[in-house]
Amino acid sequence: MTVFAATLRTIHELGYAGATMDRIAAAAGVAKTTLYRRWSSKGALIADCLLDAFGPVPLNGSSRDDVMTSAVRWIARKISEPGAGAAFAGVFSDAINDPALREILATRFQEPYRLALREALGEPDDRILLFIDVVTGTLLHRMGMTGEPMSEGDTATLTDMILNALR
Amino acid sequence: MTVFAATLRTIHELGYAGATMDRIAAAAGVAKTTLYRRWSSKGALIADCLLDAFGPVPLNGSSRDDVMTSAVRWIARKISEPGAGAAFAGVFSDAINDPALREILATRFQEPYRLALREALGEPDDRILLFIDVVTGTLLHRMGMTGEPMSEGDTATLTDMILNALR
Repeated sequence: MTVFAATLRTIHELGYAGATMDRIAAAAGVAKTTLYRRWSSKGALIADCLLDAFGPVPLNGSSRDDVMTSAVRWIARKISEPGAGAAFAGVFSDAINDPALREILATRFQEPYRLALREALGEPDDRILLFIDVVTGTLLHRMGMTGEPMSEGDTATLTDMILNALR
Repeated sequence: MTVFAATLRTIHELGYAGATMDRIAAAAGVAKTTLYRRWSSKGALIADCLLDAFGPVPLNGSSRDDVMTSAVRWIARKISEPGAGAAFAGVFSDAINDPALREILATRFQEPYRLALREALGEPDDRILLFIDVVTGTLLHRMGMTGEPMSEGDTATLTDMILNALR
């Protein structure tokens, strides 16, 4: 199993807090020192793991509304994959008290999405960042409260809310 | 120091993951067994701690818009108090993989707010729960990504987005 697959599986099975670097290394069949040679911390590993799991945001569609709708559906689907929602929510919760991890999240994880969305939507940075906060924050909070991804109906309501707000 | 004050201070200083029951007990000057007599888990303690720290949602205002605006401003202010944002984000992240903790969050922590908002706004449950997810999810994601509470300007934009969506 690759390190990234082992990371998501361990988080899915043990939760974010339970998925220590020891456990992830064991699941991947590598030494813990091997992980630390490449990633300085669990947060850094998880940021790269999420970037790999999510891939680039698809920005298809002929209108701004289509582009935003497809971006919301894409991240809703990605967050609902096993381990991904817990990894994402866990890493940004940790980051609240960890400036080094925030730097990693902002520059390595969020940055490519911010740039791609800004280019596609032609909106200023503060709007793009608010879009990201609203979409991912809402979807992750729902998963925490219910243990389930958001329903299609509520995802559509969330999308409408955002389309109207950024119109 | 009370147990709740010790809980928030420990989370503020050590982060959610670092604030173990051992550390919280030490900060409060009580035995760990004393904590476990009252709370079955760290998550249960934190749910009660947040309920105590937040208090009831103020539902003043003569219109629905006023009521929602005051609720958003209130939770934005509460989440920015030391330790509160990290406690809130940490506990719902943990809950993604912990059905017992989700039950505690849903019934003990979220329930009084759901009922008060439903009564004040006259909206069905699914709208109230979406309102709660959008507001708290967005504010907490912003704290994780920036380490800072959301600015007044972005909080106002978020409020407008929600007022328009629930109109």
